[in-house]
Amino acid sequence: MPRVSQDHLDARRRQILDGARTCFARYGYEGATVRRLEEATGLSRGAIFHHFRDKESLFLALAEDDVLRMTEVVAAQGLVQVMRDLLSTRPAADGEPHNPANWLGTRLEVSRRLRTDPEFRTRWAERSQQLTVATRERLLRQREAGNLRDDVDVEVLTAYLELVLEGLVSHLAMGLPADDMDPVLDVVEETVRRHRRSG
Amino acid sequence: MPRVSQDHLDARRRQILDGARTCFARYGYEGATVRRLEEATGLSRGAIFHHFRDKESLFLALAEDDVLRMTEVVAAQGLVQVMRDLLSTRPAADGEPHNPANWLGTRLEVSRRLRTDPEFRTRWAERSQQLTVATRERLLRQREAGNLRDDVDVEVLTAYLELVLEGLVSHLAMGLPADDMDPVLDVVEETVRRHRRSG
Repeated sequence: MPRVSQDHLDARRRQILDGARTCFARYGYEGATVRRLEEATGLSRGAIFHHFRDKESLFLALAEDDVLRMTEVVAAQGLVQVMRDLLSTRPAADGEPHNPANWLGTRLEVSRRLRTDPEFRTRWAERSQQLTVATRERLLRQREAGNLRDDVDVEVLTAYLELVLEGLVSHLAMGLPADDMDPVLDVVEETVRRHRRSG
Repeated sequence: MPRVSQDHLDARRRQILDGARTCFARYGYEGATVRRLEEATGLSRGAIFHHFRDKESLFLALAEDDVLRMTEVVAAQGLVQVMRDLLSTRPAADGEPHNPANWLGTRLEVSRRLRTDPEFRTRWAERSQQLTVATRERLLRQREAGNLRDDVDVEVLTAYLELVLEGLVSHLAMGLPADDMDPVLDVVEETVRRHRRSG
């Protein structure tokens, strides 16, 4: 047996995550059967479950991966940018090219399972905390830079942004049109960013 | 057979709706069996389905009833007040007295079914439109009275408020704590109400 390099392992792991993302987004958690995961990743179940203990671990790794990338976007551009990314990367229809930055499918599944699966809720709590922390830190930096309104507590603004994010995910989950959402997100962004006085 | 007066019919209908509201809120749509509906309303299935064709019709009547009352609150106090009411009337735990103004249980079920049941989505679209219309009309009146910011289109502000409402319902559906939500809703209300300039 040749020794498998770390680079190779990482690349394989990435390949599995990318395929699984499409698969979960298209079929949902329950609908993403092992056979479909094999098709989507181009790998055998043996190879997939060599890297991930089971489907649940694979899904959590994927969701965690997304949270990590979201926190990067939050750190650089704020939580409203995450919302704009969600809007611009809706699940590709059959035949459309897959957008590897697509967060929505996984996010919808996370939201659904949070509502229906108390055990998942517990397991997810710690991970979702990372996004809250990143959002709060970004707001604190923005406040120091004088870009944030200073009449409302950063905790409150963090909760505000997370509430709107939840609304957006729910809106998309219900299949409601989101074409006119950009000016709404402008309002959200402006609410947080600048201190404004009564005119 | 004595002639049944309209008042009596209305009271009976109200009794069924009130009991069914508690029942759907506690057990969910699928879990609200006919037996449980009988217990919750104190009426036989014969009496219940004399007034409503089937469980689906009963649920829709209930949800419609809620939308009507919500539009009244919107007209008088705005959509943010509906959100505050949702926060203050969370489902009563076992043994707690039932709050007849409780909208959340039904609203959670509507949201869940909108996500999972395309047929329900179609049937609901027209009814939910009433709330949008009431919100828009309230905002237009507020604008005329000079209470509304005038740098953002009323359509955008309506969509903004509805997005936050969806976020709140989703937040509560996930069982997340909502104790600190009041100052967040203050931010939402203030965002819409007053025109503010950069400070």
